Parts: sequence; C-alpha cells; structure tokens
Amino acid sequence: MIEILDTTLRDGTQGEAVSLSSDDKVAIAKRLAAFGVPIIEGGWPGSNPKDAEFFARMKGVGLGASQLCAFGSTRRKGVKPQDDPSVRAMLEAATPLVTVVAKSWDFHVTQALEVSLEENLQMIEETYRYLVGQGRRVIHDAEHFFDGYKANRAYALATLEAAVRGGADTLCLCDTNGGSLPEEVYEITKAVREAFPGLIIGIHPHNDGELAVANALAAIRAGATHVQGTINGYGERCGNLNLTSTIPNLILKYGLELEGISREKLTELREVSHFVDERANLTPNLRAPYVGDAAFAHKGGIHVSAVLKNPRTYEHIEPEAVGNSRRVLVSDLSGRSNLLAKLAEGGVSVPKETAGALLEEVKTLEHAGYSFEGAEASFYLLAHRLRGGEQPFEVLGFSVFMHANEANPDLPTWSEATLRVKVGESLQHTAAESEFGPVSALDLAFRKAVQPFYPEIAEIELADYKVRILSGQESGTSSGVRVLIEMARGGERWMTVGASRNSLEASLKALTDGYAYPLVKTQLISQP
Amino acid sequence: MIEILDTTLRDGTQGEAVSLSSDDKVAIAKRLAAFGVPIIEGGWPGSNPKDAEFFARMKGVGLGASQLCAFGSTRRKGVKPQDDPSVRAMLEAATPLVTVVAKSWDFHVTQALEVSLEENLQMIEETYRYLVGQGRRVIHDAEHFFDGYKANRAYALATLEAAVRGGADTLCLCDTNGGSLPEEVYEITKAVREAFPGLIIGIHPHNDGELAVANALAAIRAGATHVQGTINGYGERCGNLNLTSTIPNLILKYGLELEGISREKLTELREVSHFVDERANLTPNLRAPYVGDAAFAHKGGIHVSAVLKNPRTYEHIEPEAVGNSRRVLVSDLSGRSNLLAKLAEGGVSVPKETAGALLEEVKTLEHAGYSFEGAEASFYLLAHRLRGGEQPFEVLGFSVFMHANEANPDLPTWSEATLRVKVGESLQHTAAESEFGPVSALDLAFRKAVQPFYPEIAEIELADYKVRILSGQESGTSSGVRVLIEMARGGERWMTVGASRNSLEASLKALTDGYAYPLVKTQLISQP
Repeated sequence: MIEILDTTLRDGTQGEAVSLSSDDKVAIAKRLAAFGVPIIEGGWPGSNPKDAEFFARMKGVGLGASQLCAFGSTRRKGVKPQDDPSVRAMLEAATPLVTVVAKSWDFHVTQALEVSLEENLQMIEETYRYLVGQGRRVIHDAEHFFDGYKANRAYALATLEAAVRGGADTLCLCDTNGGSLPEEVYEITKAVREAFPGLIIGIHPHNDGELAVANALAAIRAGATHVQGTINGYGERCGNLNLTSTIPNLILKYGLELEGISREKLTELREVSHFVDERANLTPNLRAPYVGDAAFAHKGGIHVSAVLKNPRTYEHIEPEAVGNSRRVLVSDLSGRSNLLAKLAEGGVSVPKETAGALLEEVKTLEHAGYSFEGAEASFYLLAHRLRGGEQPFEVLGFSVFMHANEANPDLPTWSEATLRVKVGESLQHTAAESEFGPVSALDLAFRKAVQPFYPEIAEIELADYKVRILSGQESGTSSGVRVLIEMARGGERWMTVGASRNSLEASLKALTDGYAYPLVKTQLISQP
Repeated sequence: MIEILDTTLRDGTQGEAVSLSSDDKVAIAKRLAAFGVPIIEGGWPGSNPKDAEFFARMKGVGLGASQLCAFGSTRRKGVKPQDDPSVRAMLEAATPLVTVVAKSWDFHVTQALEVSLEENLQMIEETYRYLVGQGRRVIHDAEHFFDGYKANRAYALATLEAAVRGGADTLCLCDTNGGSLPEEVYEITKAVREAFPGLIIGIHPHNDGELAVANALAAIRAGATHVQGTINGYGERCGNLNLTSTIPNLILKYGLELEGISREKLTELREVSHFVDERANLTPNLRAPYVGDAAFAHKGGIHVSAVLKNPRTYEHIEPEAVGNSRRVLVSDLSGRSNLLAKLAEGGVSVPKETAGALLEEVKTLEHAGYSFEGAEASFYLLAHRLRGGEQPFEVLGFSVFMHANEANPDLPTWSEATLRVKVGESLQHTAAESEFGPVSALDLAFRKAVQPFYPEIAEIELADYKVRILSGQESGTSSGVRVLIEMARGGERWMTVGASRNSLEASLKALTDGYAYPLVKTQLISQP
C-alpha cells in the first residue's frame, strides 16, 4: 500500500509563476480530498502569514478520510522546541500530521544552517520528541539526503537515527536539488530500507534532471511506500515530482494499491489536473503525460489510420482510465484520413467534393495564421459553411472608440463599439460601451444585435481568451496575431480561432465563431 | 562514444501545435549542425511534399561534420524496393544515412500493416539490401520493439536478424507508444546488446509515462550508444525523448563523451533550445530542466539566502555549464532578502526605507494583477521611481479609434491613436494610424512624441507581446488582463508588465515601461 503526500499547496507554490490565494488553497484541498489523496500538506505556517490563515480557515472544513499536514523546520539553534516560533506555528495549525524538514548533508549543516554537526542531531531529536509528545505523527523530510549520503554516509544515517530516536515514524528521503540518478536513488533507498526496518520510508524527488518520476519509481522498487509530490509537478526551479504522472504509473503499470485512490478514482485524474491549473491560473501543459490534451492526440497520417483500426496500436493505456480521450488532429500535415476522422469524431459528414475543398481551405487558412488543432469548433463551422450550411448571422462591420480620462487618470478608460450584423433578413446596427476594453465592448454590441433572435446565447460565457503574435514576422505589434477563444455553456466548452494582422479583427472572428458554433451544432450533426 | 540522432524536423513536427515551414527547417538544421549534432533527421520525403522540398533545398547547404538523414518505411507488400515510391523518395533525398521504420510487434504486422509475419521479414531484409547497395548507411528503427519483445520475443528478435541480414548497421529499439518502464528497457536492451555483438544498438523513447529520459539512460547503461530524440521533447502525443535534458545528463552526470557535442558546446544548449522554440512559435517551457528560465530560479526565502551563501546548496549543476543563469524571484512570497538580492543582481541599490516601500508596492501591484517574476525591467523601474529617480517621460492620456471598412470588407481595418505625453517640460500631443491594430497605433504615436527627445528609441523593437486574462474573475472579456511585453535592442532583451481591467491600458503600461527601461538603465546602476 502506497501513501501519497501532496505538497502542491506548500512546495508547489514555491514554483515560478505559481501563486495561490487563500480561497484557491481551500478549494484545492477540498478537491484533493475528494480525489482521495490521503495526506494534504497545506503550507508552512511558521514562514508565511497566508499559510497560517489557511490552516485557521481549514479548522472548519471536513476532508473526509484525508488528513491535513503542516510543514515546518526543526527548532533553531540554542532554543527549546516549545520556545521556537516555527515549531509553535506548526502546532497551532492543529493538524494530525506534521512534516519537518531537517538537514542531512554535512555541508549544508555547517554552510547554510551554520551549526555544529552534533547540534543538528539534537535539533532533530528534540524537535520530534516534543511534537510527538503533543500527539503529532512526524514525517521526517531528510533534506538533500542523497547528496548527503554520497558526501558523508555515516552522518546522513546519523540524522535518520536522530529522527527515529525523536519518534518520527516516516523517513522521507529528499532529492532536494533534483540532480540524482535513478540507480543511485534505488541503491541508497534500499540501504536505508534495510537499515531501518519497521519505519515507513518515503521519497521526495525534484525534476532538475527530468528524472523525478523515474526516481520515485526507483525508490518504490527499493521499498519506499510514502511518496511526496505535487499536482502537475509544480515546484521550485524545474518542479517537484509530478503526481499526475506518478499515480497512474503506480496503479496502471505496477498494479500497486494506493491508499485512498482507487482505479475508479483515477478516472478523475485529468479533471483534478485541470482544476489545479485553473486555480493557479496556469495554462495546462498540452503534452502532459496521461492528462494533457495531446496525450492521446494523433497527428501523423499513419498513426491516425492505425488507431482507427485499433487504438492499442499507438496508445499505451486506454485514455478513459485517467479521464482523458482520444483526439485526431487536423493540420497542414493532415491527409484526408485525419480530416474525415475528425469530422466523424464530431458526427459531421460532408460530401466527397467538400472534403477536398475543406482540406485546401484548412491549409490556406493555416498558412494565413489560423491553427485548427485546438480550435475544433471553428473547424466544424468551416465544414458547415463549405457544404453550404445556413449561417446564423453575418458580421458586416464594426467601429471601436476608446478614451482615457485625462482630467482624472484614476477613472477607468471607456471603450465604445458599434457593430453591423445581418441576422436572416434583418440588419442590426448596435452600439455598446465597456470599461473592460474593446473586445468586451464588441462582445456586448454583438449580444445586443443577436440575442433577440437567439435568446440562448445569454447562457454562453467567454471562458478564456489567448492572443499570440505570429512568428516569422519579427516586428512586434506590426505583425499578425492569432486569437484563441474558449466559450462555455454549463459544463460544455468549445474553442475557436481567428487570425488577422489586426488583433481586434482576429478577436471578433474567434468571438463570433464561438457564438455561432452552438447555434449550428444540431444542424452540423443532423444534416448530410 | 554516444551518437545523437536529432529528429526534431521529422518526429518532432508530429507533435500537436508544432508546425515548421521549409525556411524554419533549414534554419534549425543549420543551428543543430553548428551545435555539433552528428545526425540530423530532416523529414519523411515519401509522405510529404514539404519534406521532399526541404531535402532538395538542403543539397546546397553545408552542415560541417553533421550528416543529414532521410526517414522512410520498408517497401510495401508485393512490390520491389526499387519500385516503391517511399523507398525511391528516401534515395532522392540524397542523404548519406537513412532511418527506416519497420514493424517488430507481431500484432502490428497483422493488424496495422496487414501482411504475414514472414512477408514483413522479407520487406525489411530486401529494403535494406537495396538501400545499402545504393551506398546508404541504414539505421533500423524497430517500431514498438519493447511491446513486441514482451508479446513475442522470438519474432521481435527475428525482425532484428532480418535487418542485420539486409545490411543495417544500427538497431534502434523504439518505445513507440511511450509506456515502457526503465527496468524493462534496461533488461531488453541488454539482451539485444548481447545477441547482436558488433552492431550499434540505439534507443528511441517517447514520454507517455514521463519516463523517456530515464528510459534512454537505462538503455545506455545496458549498452546502447545511439540515441534518438528531439530538442525540447517535441513529438507525437506527449513527445519524444527530450534531448535538451538527455544531453547534459549524459555529459555532466555520466561523464560520457558525445560525438560532436563537447562540454564547451554544451554551453550553447539553452540558446539552441530557445532558438528551436522561437522557430516553432512555441513559448519556451519555463520549468524545463537545465534550459528553462526557472531551472535555476530561487523563490523560497530560505533557498534564496542559502544560494547567496553558496549556490551548490540548491543547484545540482552550475547553470553556466548549459548556458543558463541563476535568478532570484521577487513575488508576494518574497522576503526582504529576495528583494535585495534581485536589486543586487541588476546592480541597483536603494536606501533601507525604500526597500520596505518597494516590497509593499510589489505586493499591492501583484494583488492587482501584476507579476514581476518575469518582468524584471518593470521591477527595476519601480525601484527607480520609489527612490525618487528621474522619469524620462510621463503618459497623460490617450484615445484610440478603430474602423472596419464596411464598403469593402476585404480592405484592412485601420486604427488611429492620439497620445498626450510629457517629456521634461514639454507637452507632446501626437496622433498616428496603423493597419495592425490599436497597440500598434499607440506605439507609433508614442514614438512620434518621444523619439525627438530620445533618438535612441528608434533602435528598440517590440519582440514579444503576451496577453492573459486574470483568474478569479470568471467573466472572460469583462475581467482584468495582464500584458507582458519583451523589447529588444540588438542582442539585449528585457521584459515589462502592465495589468488593468482594460487591455489597452495594460498594453500601454507595459509598452512605455519597455521604452523607459533602457533610458534610465545607466542611472539605475550608477545612482545610489
């Protein structure tokens, strides 16, 4: 039985570009508990008032079978544990478990901590004895254990002995600098496993050599049963162990049982991964193993035709096992079989002549800056138009006016948009204003023009909006842009694309596709 | 001696969102050759007219000691190799080497290829005998070798024997579906190594289990000396083996010699990685091991103070070995030591009182949507302002007007901007128009206003422009945005940030910081 400790909320937030509010942290803790993660490390209350606030808020929050854990360090030199503010903050977090980081590399003890080797051992033992006396389960995070073991084996082992004397029940070996190799991790973990029977041995890898997952698996093969990592591999520098890859490897490849996370729960993996990215305001990694949008996306023509015969030909697992799904990509590398498979995936059929024209049009538009790989709704709309499908509306023109308030620069800038749209036989000319910029003003003017004819667009929300400058045109703002827009209605989401030299034009194209797609969706599928 | 085959230009382009023009491919081939990569696989001329065009263009391009390689598959069933269009296309590419993919998994032979097991062996042997007869070195890419070996060991080995009979000198074992585990790769590669003495054994992993780098290292420990992968790990699904991590692991961790890529060349690694991302129009992975911007970035307060004492405390290698550098991050998690270290990194000193005010201001602005982690120029400008530094100009207000040409929708949309800027005692009121959108019009109006006073801004270019919607505000266009801008002058680059509910305001803030930074840079460093 393997025990997972998730440290997304503590070590994960030390990653560049990762920033979580107290609300985000509570929401993520609840989601991890629902997923079944047995130990959720919530923060370092002694270092950070935001983390102390989080633990205070969590006192009223139920996490089911999951346990919350506070992080801290051993007492400082020359003070008693009960007088150390960091140790006290860990206790005030009122969690059943604490993870305590302690030095195991002699170089770090003398250079970074600046205490004697002997005092470090006392700091470990006394801190743990005090915490265990206060009713806590103590997880010993042996910082830099592998580097320390290679530099001074006897001292590294002496730090573990001090932890055991103090009452820690888990010895977690940390590859803090992330540079260890799997065979070293295997050998050293095995030696520790043999030297400390009866203790729980853990592993806490970092990804500086792109080997964190392999190092975790090596430690587990050597007898470790406790694993520390983060969702999506967030963390300092190159990140912590990516649990989103490790968990399915352990369950699906090694057939191991994980405390709290069953095979059934594993089908939530992709959703958990995206939930955490969403909360951290980070774009999900397209290529992420198991959970990424591309993880089961097939682009090469030969791959596509084989996968259509039997998915096992180019898939190592069934995507449904981790809540993901198969995708066929349409691109300028596509052959007709990709295109037809993509149409079939959406339930859209087109006459043979149209398929050829569609392939040509995709290649022309991709050359002009469009990219249909992600923007499947725009691709289906293109198919709809080329086979002569009815258009719900037609944008004829727009203007936008923006003005900063010079008299009072603290007041926001206002944008005003006018729009001409043809809906059926009716010509709509609307205007709207917004303090949120020109795309927002256009969006409001569009809704004003079209909603009377299609009331259902009131439920559609703009969920994401991404702009990127197109390469090969090196002059910055004077080059083309591609806009990708994600729209949502309830739990349903779809993506559209627009490209133009003018960013507003590109935005408007993607935006109007985003409204058109749900309006023609039933026709898309039902018509020939 | 390890031989690297780079397949960025072939397998890499099968990755989602990876699209390279013929110009891009020529530029990347030249860059890889300058880096010392011994074998550059350029494409699959038999499958794709773009790749055939690439090889035609490359006939006039010198690559020094590097060799170009064409990819293809074994002949089809029932035709002679000399009559097979795909085999002929490989020869027409006129490369000294060819990589030929062949089936080694019985299931694939009968299910995907739909030929008998015996005919597949003949297809391999005959194709290779013909290619070797035409003077080619043949690299046998044994597709799905590990899956095939586990399913039918005798048949998998028989395919390798057919390759050897045909004259292939390299047996490259492919983990095509990317799901193999390091210990399996080690055992199977070792068995092949022992069964085929005198042959070059290779490895071609994919990253579906986040184990590609570990699998390559396992194969090399088992005796493989030929490694196939891509820069930045581009490739089908989760990507191919990431050479950008593998190369430094082999040189720095295992002390192995690589053909063509010396320790000195390794210092170009980060630049090569970014060059390829730039050409592919992909944002570099912040957290990429060795080469990412965050790979040696320290955020946690304790890490920062230790690294300032001795970088070895939290770095597994010296960043300079791969052309990277150490960074200290400033964020709302920062303590005063991060802030002072960051200022020292830029050569900027501030009085003690100002440091406290700066920390407060950073926290306030980050709460409002700014992020200074990447935008170091804006951080330095903030420090400059808070210590009372002189401002080169002050933006007082702006207007933007945009109009689509309704009479002729094929004509581009024009944007017009007016701007009021104070430069010293002079009030400038300028107007400019652009067909490239409102930010471009504002940029031109700004240059018109400020360039007469600071002629050097003529040399500054806008290199990148990124917009993202801020989370926690779920209403799409009606929420705040953060704009990150990268400016360039010659080889120098700097990043700035602006955040606002209005995307144009955010853009203008980032843009004007981008112009201000080089103007105050000398004052930043020289003044107290």
